[in-house]
Amino acid sequence: MALFDAIVTSPDMDEAFSDAAILSAMLRFEAALALAEARARVIPGAAADAIAAVSPAAFDSEAIARKARASATPAIAFVETLTAAVASAHPSAAAYVHYGATSQDVTDTALVLCLRRAQNAIDALHARIDGALRRLSKAHASSVMLGRTLLQPAPPTTFGLKAAGWLGSLSRSHQGLTEAFARSSVLQFGGASGTLAALHDRGLEVAQYLSRELDLTLPDAPWHAHRDRLAFLVSACGVYAGAIGKAARDIALLMQAEVAEASEPGGTSSTMPHKRNPAGCAVALAAASRLPGLVATFLAGMAQEHERGVGGGQAEWATVATAVVATGSAASALAGVVEGLRVDPERMRQAIAESHGAVFSERAMMRLAPVLGRDVAARLVAGAVAAAARGESFASALLADPEAAAALTDHDRATLESPETYLGLAEQFRRRLTGGLE
Amino acid sequence: MALFDAIVTSPDMDEAFSDAAILSAMLRFEAALALAEARARVIPGAAADAIAAVSPAAFDSEAIARKARASATPAIAFVETLTAAVASAHPSAAAYVHYGATSQDVTDTALVLCLRRAQNAIDALHARIDGALRRLSKAHASSVMLGRTLLQPAPPTTFGLKAAGWLGSLSRSHQGLTEAFARSSVLQFGGASGTLAALHDRGLEVAQYLSRELDLTLPDAPWHAHRDRLAFLVSACGVYAGAIGKAARDIALLMQAEVAEASEPGGTSSTMPHKRNPAGCAVALAAASRLPGLVATFLAGMAQEHERGVGGGQAEWATVATAVVATGSAASALAGVVEGLRVDPERMRQAIAESHGAVFSERAMMRLAPVLGRDVAARLVAGAVAAAARGESFASALLADPEAAAALTDHDRATLESPETYLGLAEQFRRRLTGGLE
Amino acid sequence: MALFDAIVTSPDMDEAFSDAAILSAMLRFEAALALAEARARVIPGAAADAIAAVSPAAFDSEAIARKARASATPAIAFVETLTAAVASAHPSAAAYVHYGATSQDVTDTALVLCLRRAQNAIDALHARIDGALRRLSKAHASSVMLGRTLLQPAPPTTFGLKAAGWLGSLSRSHQGLTEAFARSSVLQFGGASGTLAALHDRGLEVAQYLSRELDLTLPDAPWHAHRDRLAFLVSACGVYAGAIGKAARDIALLMQAEVAEASEPGGTSSTMPHKRNPAGCAVALAAASRLPGLVATFLAGMAQEHERGVGGGQAEWATVATAVVATGSAASALAGVVEGLRVDPERMRQAIAESHGAVFSERAMMRLAPVLGRDVAARLVAGAVAAAARGESFASALLADPEAAAALTDHDRATLESPETYLGLAEQFRRRLTGGLE
Amino acid sequence: MALFDAIVTSPDMDEAFSDAAILSAMLRFEAALALAEARARVIPGAAADAIAAVSPAAFDSEAIARKARASATPAIAFVETLTAAVASAHPSAAAYVHYGATSQDVTDTALVLCLRRAQNAIDALHARIDGALRRLSKAHASSVMLGRTLLQPAPPTTFGLKAAGWLGSLSRSHQGLTEAFARSSVLQFGGASGTLAALHDRGLEVAQYLSRELDLTLPDAPWHAHRDRLAFLVSACGVYAGAIGKAARDIALLMQAEVAEASEPGGTSSTMPHKRNPAGCAVALAAASRLPGLVATFLAGMAQEHERGVGGGQAEWATVATAVVATGSAASALAGVVEGLRVDPERMRQAIAESHGAVFSERAMMRLAPVLGRDVAARLVAGAVAAAARGESFASALLADPEAAAALTDHDRATLESPETYLGLAEQFRRRLTGGLE
Repeated sequence: MALFDAIVTSPDMDEAFSDAAILSAMLRFEAALALAEARARVIPGAAADAIAAVSPAAFDSEAIARKARASATPAIAFVETLTAAVASAHPSAAAYVHYGATSQDVTDTALVLCLRRAQNAIDALHARIDGALRRLSKAHASSVMLGRTLLQPAPPTTFGLKAAGWLGSLSRSHQGLTEAFARSSVLQFGGASGTLAALHDRGLEVAQYLSRELDLTLPDAPWHAHRDRLAFLVSACGVYAGAIGKAARDIALLMQAEVAEASEPGGTSSTMPHKRNPAGCAVALAAASRLPGLVATFLAGMAQEHERGVGGGQAEWATVATAVVATGSAASALAGVVEGLRVDPERMRQAIAESHGAVFSERAMMRLAPVLGRDVAARLVAGAVAAAARGESFASALLADPEAAAALTDHDRATLESPETYLGLAEQFRRRLTGGLE
Repeated sequence: MALFDAIVTSPDMDEAFSDAAILSAMLRFEAALALAEARARVIPGAAADAIAAVSPAAFDSEAIARKARASATPAIAFVETLTAAVASAHPSAAAYVHYGATSQDVTDTALVLCLRRAQNAIDALHARIDGALRRLSKAHASSVMLGRTLLQPAPPTTFGLKAAGWLGSLSRSHQGLTEAFARSSVLQFGGASGTLAALHDRGLEVAQYLSRELDLTLPDAPWHAHRDRLAFLVSACGVYAGAIGKAARDIALLMQAEVAEASEPGGTSSTMPHKRNPAGCAVALAAASRLPGLVATFLAGMAQEHERGVGGGQAEWATVATAVVATGSAASALAGVVEGLRVDPERMRQAIAESHGAVFSERAMMRLAPVLGRDVAARLVAGAVAAAARGESFASALLADPEAAAALTDHDRATLESPETYLGLAEQFRRRLTGGLE
Repeated sequence: MALFDAIVTSPDMDEAFSDAAILSAMLRFEAALALAEARARVIPGAAADAIAAVSPAAFDSEAIARKARASATPAIAFVETLTAAVASAHPSAAAYVHYGATSQDVTDTALVLCLRRAQNAIDALHARIDGALRRLSKAHASSVMLGRTLLQPAPPTTFGLKAAGWLGSLSRSHQGLTEAFARSSVLQFGGASGTLAALHDRGLEVAQYLSRELDLTLPDAPWHAHRDRLAFLVSACGVYAGAIGKAARDIALLMQAEVAEASEPGGTSSTMPHKRNPAGCAVALAAASRLPGLVATFLAGMAQEHERGVGGGQAEWATVATAVVATGSAASALAGVVEGLRVDPERMRQAIAESHGAVFSERAMMRLAPVLGRDVAARLVAGAVAAAARGESFASALLADPEAAAALTDHDRATLESPETYLGLAEQFRRRLTGGLE
Repeated sequence: MALFDAIVTSPDMDEAFSDAAILSAMLRFEAALALAEARARVIPGAAADAIAAVSPAAFDSEAIARKARASATPAIAFVETLTAAVASAHPSAAAYVHYGATSQDVTDTALVLCLRRAQNAIDALHARIDGALRRLSKAHASSVMLGRTLLQPAPPTTFGLKAAGWLGSLSRSHQGLTEAFARSSVLQFGGASGTLAALHDRGLEVAQYLSRELDLTLPDAPWHAHRDRLAFLVSACGVYAGAIGKAARDIALLMQAEVAEASEPGGTSSTMPHKRNPAGCAVALAAASRLPGLVATFLAGMAQEHERGVGGGQAEWATVATAVVATGSAASALAGVVEGLRVDPERMRQAIAESHGAVFSERAMMRLAPVLGRDVAARLVAGAVAAAARGESFASALLADPEAAAALTDHDRATLESPETYLGLAEQFRRRLTGGLE
């Protein structure tokens, strides 16, 4: 289904959850388990060596995938293939394959190992986004533009602050994602019922060796039916993807021909030569739009029965992989968008001018109301807003009223329609969001 | 990602959304379009023949998938490849490739064509489920078993009615799915802005030929940004999958060792030789569990901007394909479960007996309250329930009370703990649900 | 929580799911049940009369709500109150309250009765939307405007077709909703285990009287744990709300100051006197945005165990009520928006002109490619597109090339930038969508 | 809608999001703002005092709720009422009401203030759950019971470990929830466009006073359209509710009559006197089941346009309040369940015995395979499993084979069916999960 999934996957993420990646991770678990058990003198060293020597080439991922449905896990066909490979090379070692482990030990730990790879890919994409947004924010620290609330013109802000706002949300949610990856980076190893009973009194020792070998945290206990760590991870993907979608939507809106304040490299049309589409934003939004449903699927599957459930857990591989891939796909698209973003400060300034000063109505109101009272001020400002709607100058209309003119300072009168003098803390907020590190 | 998706996909559904299937469907659209345009004398017949002659072998699905992200649609790379193939064979025909169509015309129509294939696959699976459940329902029309409400014993029912209940819900929701497939089986053909302007006054004629050629309904108008038909389809998948999940959960519960009233063929364990797991139920539940999230994703993406949106539509291919495949995967698993289901009427009867008659407390209450008044009846029945909880006979305990005994008929006294005489309309309901057609 | 829910509920929908409405519906079920049972000679007529005489004033909804949690259903406290009320007036009738029914019989049937009320409210709102959109579509049948794909200018369409497109999707999804309401309008009556065993051989007779009395369809069998009909209903709400959201988003985009082609009555700002916000669109989108999640919740809860589940069913009252109310709230907001919509055909025409003809690039391409070949045509059109981007006329730039000029007819040359002559089937599609009934 | 929502809300949570709570929080924001502005000499102290003196009694929450739809926010009607109240007492102070703030400043900050109250309620419920589970875990540290995987018997575990497993997942997810509450506990204060421009150079000073006054963190910048913090909070509710659902499902399964190893206080039936339903588990699961959909709704709404979006943000109040209330409702139900849980260690031990030793098949396999080779061991164990299925002793059947008997130690032979000697690390894991603090 490469074509059907083309928009929501990404070459950047391909590796992490490929058949080769997961088979290699499963094999890594089994090899490390055997070596840990040998070290703890649970199984013979020679058997461990034989197990650790099996190469990924011994496995046919298509065949294992086909068989997975029969037992609701790919682990059984995988372990059978591994056992056969060991047996053919070293018959007596076959008894020690997957020794003391359960199917979910290998599938969960392999998933966690794949997640680490995926995290690296996402981190690299995030670094690109972070870099590009910092550059944009700094370069446009004083590019004034309309604030827009409910898609209507509001007092000015700067593009530097806008970019910093995206950065702030992306940074915070990436931080949350990083923490969730870290908390998910735990070994799964509990055996049949989660007690490691098959390993006598050596269970903890083996688990410690194993977690060290795989560079994974050893959790307090196996977590076969307790999926909170992965739930936080998938949720964090959802939040990060949400932050991506916010930036992508803003940029697609800025790229409207009627706005034209920023544009991404974009894509072409199959039929309209003049078109340049916000294709990167579309891909980012499309991929990001998968996350809410996937998070819901994961959360709804958490009520897994007893020591291992029926259905909830079996759905997770697909859910987690799809969620992480879609997140990376969205990040990849946004990275392309912000790295190639062209910003038009002149159009931005022009858009402010086109309100004929009406966007400064709040400014006037704040100045006049304390002097003239709320009702008088409101009436005067409404008159000036109406004038601006007719294409006249808001400031001129307002100042034509002697009461209004008298209530304002010289400076206010001179700057009533100047965006630069009504930016408030835009630059301070921008610096706080970018950490002053530009 | 064959391994990560193994549980939630199914060989039965593989064909419908494979790269080969969608490429072939896209090509079918373009060929039919060219032929329809030739027939309407919009393009030369020779050009149409040249376009219709291009074989799927000309397309590299991986390459098209890779390029899809750059323009947020696979259509552009597809049309480029098609144009190149036509140009190399018949240069002057290249100008007529995809003539008057837009990207979404080919991607939507191709999706609809793939859906027809998927519908056939799902229908075949449903027929297996339907057949198996009818057989089970008929064979066990008089196999009494506990009703269970909130997972607690209730008055008896029959396994025949239980199977008919699954069948009823599956039949109704399959009927809804069938209607949704029919309503979705519409041509998409509107050109750049959905007006077919590029075809002068021949647009409707071309559209009519094209819809006939592809055996698709011609809708009132193109539906580029109006996704209600597909929304109903994806939702109907959700309902049908929900009905599948209900049956699968019931069967997994009946298969508990402590209940052991029915068992599916099941799967093995990687570590526990004694285990037979409800693997089919697990796969059915896992696949079905994807649907709620996918339906939500589709619905949330419906607010597509103007004539074609940014993000919402681009996510749909993956959502629809994943939803339909997961539905089929769940149906496939359930078909295996019900076809291989073993039912144990003795255990069912035994489970009723193990309540020591307490599950007939309602029966006693209904008989006694009108005679003795609600309060007296409640006190007597409570006493008998307590006796049953100690392992004594509910009936004996109740009848030991002269008031209670006197309030009952001979027949009631004799049959108070007999499930066969407290089945009410179980058989009528069963026949109504199975349509009396067994 | 009236304030927290203010945006997503609506006075239009308030009645349908108020405490008074549901209490009255529950009481109606119990009264009709008693009368049906009397008619079938299951209980004495005097008892039925006593039950039917109890007034809603006997019930304290707050108290019943508080007690509902203790038994995971409001039915028990409700039946207790009803029994006490009957007992105080007519002691011997108390034994016949709720006779042979189970909690879910009254809660499900009462829900169905409330749904009918809600349907009426939604239908009335839909009729307003339908009327307003037909008027707008007819009035603006020839108001040309930009098509916009991926938020970029595309060849022209008409506002009449745009409004008709909203209408088409809303009509189809309202039709689906109507069918789903009809299919959900079924009696729930099965007794403890869904067999009506407590009613001996009179179960079907009672059920028939009862369904007739309540004007509900008698289903094949009770459907306690089979929730497909309600699942279709909630899903249909989701699709209809999705169609509402699509129209609302389009209108909010058209109302941007930079576009200004249409505006809804809107709302004010707490701080900016010049603002007119698309408040109606915001409310419509906000309410509609609840649906995808609610549909997912309902679908995920369908796997209800055996004859009555643990958790899935108990969540449904809130889910169904919230979903239907939010749908009505969205419809109410959209009705206000479209009834008050002001359209500016001049701005629409102006927006086309501002592309300097570039939106007709497809038109030129379709005419030139067959004559000059795809490559030559593409080069010439690209040149003219570039000219338009500089603010020159696309047509002039194109016709300045002798090859291009020669390849076009006089008519094409004269109308290359005229939107009226490039509308294709806009008016036919509009008429088909509005059913020609304007 | 108290009745429709009865199961998914809870008296414990009622206060936090009541109309009184949110009105009081909104008023607190406005009062603190005025005082902060007076302190920063932006407004006169007398005006601030007049504003701070307005009492909640001045507000009619129903009226404000009704008006909220007209402007897509309750803030405007609220501010109007407040202004009128101030004006009537102190006319010149009216101009300073809500000075420099925007609607979302008051609605977001008030939401955050309500969340703090809700957090306290949830923390109190969690403390009850935590205490009860620690007691249960300690009391049943050596109560052996079946492990159950895919609802089938597996090697033994202890109820102490099972309870500790619930505790572990609940503790981790509560910890995540606590962090998310902390991160959400931030002031919203940005004015019209998020720059605090109306406050000249005093914006930051006012913001600092205001955040201190309200005991909220001052964020780097206003976050009007950046919803990541709340997204993490709602997601964390989802994870915590998922962990609650897991425990509730396990308990409902243990309470099945056929299992009967644990039972919660439960509820009664409207028709069946013998029933004790897992009503607490049902309520916990029902309330928890709302969360996945609500999380999806929140995440899908994150792509809020520019400085304040259309639809996404307006839906949030209802989503956040519903999500937090449902989480608390689930926690409240689970608290009742675990505090009243009755555990039957005898039934637990009995269930192990009823497998006739088959659940120790893995144990035998682990001992025999290294000695006899995998194939021989598998054959012998399969024979013993078959014997157990006929009701014979697994151990006797196995030891009847001389090869098997010889391969085992005396100790193994003597304890092959003894659960106490096959608990592995159950107690260590239990202690690690409960932190050794019992």
